[in-house]
Amino acid sequence: MANFKGHALPGTFFLLYGFWLTVKHTLRHNWRTSKPNGRQTVPPFSKKMDYIEGGFTILASFVGIIAEQFVVDGPHARLYDTEHKAWVKLMNWQHGTMYLFFGISGMTLVTSTKSKLVPPGVDRLALALALFVEGFLFYYHVHSRPPLDAHIHSLLLVAVFGGSASTMLEVFVRDNIVLELLGACLFILQGSWFYQIGFVLYPLNGIEWDLEMHDNIMFVTMCFCWHLAVALLLVACTSSVVWFTVKRFSGRSQDIEIGMRNTSSKTSCQKALLEESDEE
Amino acid sequence: MANFKGHALPGTFFLLYGFWLTVKHTLRHNWRTSKPNGRQTVPPFSKKMDYIEGGFTILASFVGIIAEQFVVDGPHARLYDTEHKAWVKLMNWQHGTMYLFFGISGMTLVTSTKSKLVPPGVDRLALALALFVEGFLFYYHVHSRPPLDAHIHSLLLVAVFGGSASTMLEVFVRDNIVLELLGACLFILQGSWFYQIGFVLYPLNGIEWDLEMHDNIMFVTMCFCWHLAVALLLVACTSSVVWFTVKRFSGRSQDIEIGMRNTSSKTSCQKALLEESDEE
Amino acid sequence: MANFKGHALPGTFFLLYGFWLTVKHTLRHNWRTSKPNGRQTVPPFSKKMDYIEGGFTILASFVGIIAEQFVVDGPHARLYDTEHKAWVKLMNWQHGTMYLFFGISGMTLVTSTKSKLVPPGVDRLALALALFVEGFLFYYHVHSRPPLDAHIHSLLLVAVFGGSASTMLEVFVRDNIVLELLGACLFILQGSWFYQIGFVLYPLNGIEWDLEMHDNIMFVTMCFCWHLAVALLLVACTSSVVWFTVKRFSGRSQDIEIGMRNTSSKTSCQKALLEESDEE
Amino acid sequence: MANFKGHALPGTFFLLYGFWLTVKHTLRHNWRTSKPNGRQTVPPFSKKMDYIEGGFTILASFVGIIAEQFVVDGPHARLYDTEHKAWVKLMNWQHGTMYLFFGISGMTLVTSTKSKLVPPGVDRLALALALFVEGFLFYYHVHSRPPLDAHIHSLLLVAVFGGSASTMLEVFVRDNIVLELLGACLFILQGSWFYQIGFVLYPLNGIEWDLEMHDNIMFVTMCFCWHLAVALLLVACTSSVVWFTVKRFSGRSQDIEIGMRNTSSKTSCQKALLEESDEE
Repeated sequence: MANFKGHALPGTFFLLYGFWLTVKHTLRHNWRTSKPNGRQTVPPFSKKMDYIEGGFTILASFVGIIAEQFVVDGPHARLYDTEHKAWVKLMNWQHGTMYLFFGISGMTLVTSTKSKLVPPGVDRLALALALFVEGFLFYYHVHSRPPLDAHIHSLLLVAVFGGSASTMLEVFVRDNIVLELLGACLFILQGSWFYQIGFVLYPLNGIEWDLEMHDNIMFVTMCFCWHLAVALLLVACTSSVVWFTVKRFSGRSQDIEIGMRNTSSKTSCQKALLEESDEE
Repeated sequence: MANFKGHALPGTFFLLYGFWLTVKHTLRHNWRTSKPNGRQTVPPFSKKMDYIEGGFTILASFVGIIAEQFVVDGPHARLYDTEHKAWVKLMNWQHGTMYLFFGISGMTLVTSTKSKLVPPGVDRLALALALFVEGFLFYYHVHSRPPLDAHIHSLLLVAVFGGSASTMLEVFVRDNIVLELLGACLFILQGSWFYQIGFVLYPLNGIEWDLEMHDNIMFVTMCFCWHLAVALLLVACTSSVVWFTVKRFSGRSQDIEIGMRNTSSKTSCQKALLEESDEE
Repeated sequence: MANFKGHALPGTFFLLYGFWLTVKHTLRHNWRTSKPNGRQTVPPFSKKMDYIEGGFTILASFVGIIAEQFVVDGPHARLYDTEHKAWVKLMNWQHGTMYLFFGISGMTLVTSTKSKLVPPGVDRLALALALFVEGFLFYYHVHSRPPLDAHIHSLLLVAVFGGSASTMLEVFVRDNIVLELLGACLFILQGSWFYQIGFVLYPLNGIEWDLEMHDNIMFVTMCFCWHLAVALLLVACTSSVVWFTVKRFSGRSQDIEIGMRNTSSKTSCQKALLEESDEE
Repeated sequence: MANFKGHALPGTFFLLYGFWLTVKHTLRHNWRTSKPNGRQTVPPFSKKMDYIEGGFTILASFVGIIAEQFVVDGPHARLYDTEHKAWVKLMNWQHGTMYLFFGISGMTLVTSTKSKLVPPGVDRLALALALFVEGFLFYYHVHSRPPLDAHIHSLLLVAVFGGSASTMLEVFVRDNIVLELLGACLFILQGSWFYQIGFVLYPLNGIEWDLEMHDNIMFVTMCFCWHLAVALLLVACTSSVVWFTVKRFSGRSQDIEIGMRNTSSKTSCQKALLEESDEE
C-alpha cells in the first residue's frame, strides 16, 4: 500500500461512496417530503439501493481482504512466523481488519433492509463502528513517522472520526437530511484526502516533499480545509442536480414512483433498480 | 490478581453479564413490539430478571470485596501501616472499590425494580458510574508500566469508557434496543479482553511476550478490533436465537407470557424465573 | 486561602448547596408527580425556594469577593503594582472571579423566577458557566505544583466539570429528576473533596503527607471514589427522607399544598417559606 | 496582520455580529411567543434580516480575501515560489481560507432563506463549520510561540470551539432562545478577546508585556473570564432593551408587525428592512 495507487484506490472508493450516499439520501428526502403521509412506507427503489450498497460493500471488502493477503508481498494468511519469532506483514493484516468492519457494515445493511425485525439504526451503528475502527487503527499507525507524514495522516483522522460521530448520531436522529449529507460530505472529504496523501508522500512528478519543513505542515493543514470546502460544494451540487432532475420528471400531480420510472429511462443504473422493483 | 486467573475471573463475569444483558433486552424488546399497547406495563418475567441480576451483582460484589481483603496476601481490612508508614496492598483496596460500585449498581437495580417511586433510569446511571469508576481507577493504574502492558490496559479503557458512555445515554434514551445491545456488546468485549490481557501478560504456554516490541503493540491493537467483531457477532447471534425461540413458542395469537411458559419447559433458568412470576 | 480553613469554607458551602438542591428537586418532583395535570403551574413554595437560593448565592458571592479583597494580606482592590511591575495577589483575584460567576448565577435565578419573560433554562446555563469558570481557573491553577498537590486538585476538576456538564444538560432536558439529583450529588462530592484537600495538604494532626510518593496518589484516587459513593448515599437518603416526610403529612386525598402547610408546622425553614406563599 | 489593527478589525466584526445575532434572535423569539399559533410562518422582517446578514457576510469575506491577497506585502495570488522553493505568505492564505468559510456560511444563509427546499439547519451547520475551520487553523497556528502568545491564542480557541459546538447544537435543537443567545455571547466574547490579544501583543502605550512571565499567563486566564462576564451582561442588556422596545411599541392588542413598523420609525436600520418587507 506504500505507493500512490495504494492511496488512490481507497480514495476512489470513499469518493464514490460519498456521492452514492448524497444521491441516496436526496432521493429519500424527496420521497419523504413529497408524500404528505410520508413516513409509513419505504419506497421500493430505496430498498433496492440499500441492497446494491450492501452487496457492493460486502464484495469490495471481501476482495480487499483477499487482495491484502495474497498480493506478492502479502502475508498469505500467515500471522506469526515462529521461525523468525516475528509477526508477518502486520500492515496488510490491519488493512484487512478495516475492510472486515466495512464488510460487517454491508452485511448489517442488507440484513436490516431484508428483515423488519432488525431494529432501525443498526446499519448506521455498524457503519459508525467501521469508521471508528478505521480511525482507531490509523491512530496507532502514524506513530514515529516524519512530522509531515504523521500530520497528514492525523488530518485524515479528523474526517474519519468526524464521519464516525455524525453516523453514530444518525442512530438516534433519524431521517435528518442535514446530518445524512454531512456524513456523505465527510466521506468525500476522506476520499479526496486519501488522494492528497498519495500526491504528497508519493509525488507523481517525482519531486519529493520535505517531510520536516514546518511550512509544508502549515500548507497541508490549510489544504485540508480547501478539500472540505470542495466536498461541501460537491455535495450541494450533486444534491441539487438530483433533486431538480427528480422534480422535473415526476411533475406535480404524478406519483413520485412513476416519475422515478421516467427518470430511469435516462439513468441506466436506476433503470436496473426499478425493473427489479416491479416484481415487489 | 497479578496472574492469569486474576484476569480470567472478572473476564468470565463480564462475558456472562454481556450475554445476560443481550438476552434480557431482546426479551423485553420482543415484549414491547408484540404488545400493540406496549408501554404501559412491565411484564412480570422482566421484573424477576432484574431481581436476579441485581441480587447476583450484590452477592458477587460482596464476595469480591471480602475475597480481595482476606486472601492470604491481602490487606485484611488494614488500610495504613503506621509502623512502616505505608499503605497496605492498595491494589486490593482499589479492586474492592470497583466491586463496591458494581454492588451499588446492583442495589439500585433491585430498589428501582421494587419501588415505582425510584425514577426510571437511576439503575442505568448507577451502572454507568460503576463503569466510570472502574475506568477511572484503571486509568491511574497503568502508569509507569512497560509499553505493551500499559497499551493493553489502555485498550481495555476503550471498552470500559465506551460502555459507561453508552449506559449513560440509556438514562435519557429509554427502550432503545440498539443502544441496549451496544452496551451488552461492550460488556462482552470487556470480558474477552480481560482474557486476552491474561493470555498476553501471563502466557499459559510459558513463552513470554516481549513487552517492549513495537510489533506486539500493533498486533494487540488489531486484535482488540477482532474481539469487537466477535463480540458484535455473538450479540447478533444470541439476540436472534432468543428472538426466534420466543417467537416459535409463543405463536401468533397467543399471549406472549404463555409462550414464555412453554419456552421455560426447555430452559431451566427461565423456568425458575417464571415459576416465581406466577405468584404475582 | 492556603490553609485548612480556606478549603473548609468553600467545602461547607458546596456541601450545603448540594443538600439544598437535593431537597428542592425532590420536593418539586413530588409536586410534579402528585398533580395529574402537573406541568402547568409552578407551586408557590418552589418560587420562594428559588428566591432564597438566589438571594443567598448573591449575598455569599458578594461577601466572598469583599473578603478576598480586604483580608489583611489581600490585594485591597489593587490589581497591578506599577512600582514593582507585578500583579498584586492574583490568587485572591482569581477566587473573586469564581465568586463573581456564582453571583451572576444567583442573579439569573432570581430574575428568571421573578419574570416569565426570561426563557426557562437560563438559570441552569448560568450555573453551568459558573462551574465551568471555576474548573477553567483551577485547571491553570495546578500548574507546577508537587505531584500529589496537582493530582488532588485535578481530581476536584472531575467533580467540577462533571457538575458543569450535567447542569448544562439540564438546559435541554428539563425536569429530569435523575439529572437534577446527579448535579446535587456532584456538588456534595465537590464539597467533601474540598475538605479532603484541606486534610491532605494542611493536616490537622500535623503529620505532613509526602507529596511525591506514588502510593499517596493511588490512595487519593481511590479515596475520591469513596467520596463519590458517600455522596450518592447521602443524596439517596436525603431524597428518600424528604419524599416520605412529605407523603406522610400530605395524605392521599389531600391537596399537596395543604400537606406542605402541615409539614411546615414542624420545619421552621419551610414554615417561613409558606407563610410568605400565602400572600400570593 | 501582525499588528494591533490586524486584531482590532476581526474583533470589531465579531463584536458587531454578536450584537446582531442577539437582536435578531430576540426579535424572532418575541415573534414566536407573541403569536399563539406561532410556528407556521416566518415573519417577513426575519427574512430580510437573514438576507442582510448573509449578503454582508459574503461581501465582507470577499473583501477580506482580496485584501489579504493584494495588500503590499501579500502573496498576490501566488501560492508557491518555485524559484526559492518556498510557500508564499502562508499566513495570508490561512486567513483567506477562514474568510472563505464564513463566505460559504453567508451563501448558505441566503440560499436557505430564499428557498424552502434547503433543509432547515443547513445555515447553522455552515456557520458551525466556519467556526470549526477558524479554530482548526488557529490551533496549528500557535505552535512554537512564546508562552503568553500561545496561551492567549489558545484561550481564543475556547470561545471559537465553544461557539462552533453551540452553533452545531442549533442544527438539532431549533428555536431555542437560550442556545441562540449563548452563541451570540460567544461571538461577542471572541470579538472582545481579539481586542485583548491586540492590546497584549501590540500594546498601544508601547510598554511591552513579558511573554515568559507566569503571572501574566495567570492574569490573562482570569481576564478571559471577565470578558465572558461582560459578554453575558451585554447580551442580557441588549436582549432586554430590544424586547421591551418592541413590546412598548407593539401594544397588546395590536399585531406584532404593525408594532415593528412603529419601532422602525426610530431605528433606521429596521426601517430599511421593513420598507422592503412591504413589497412581499
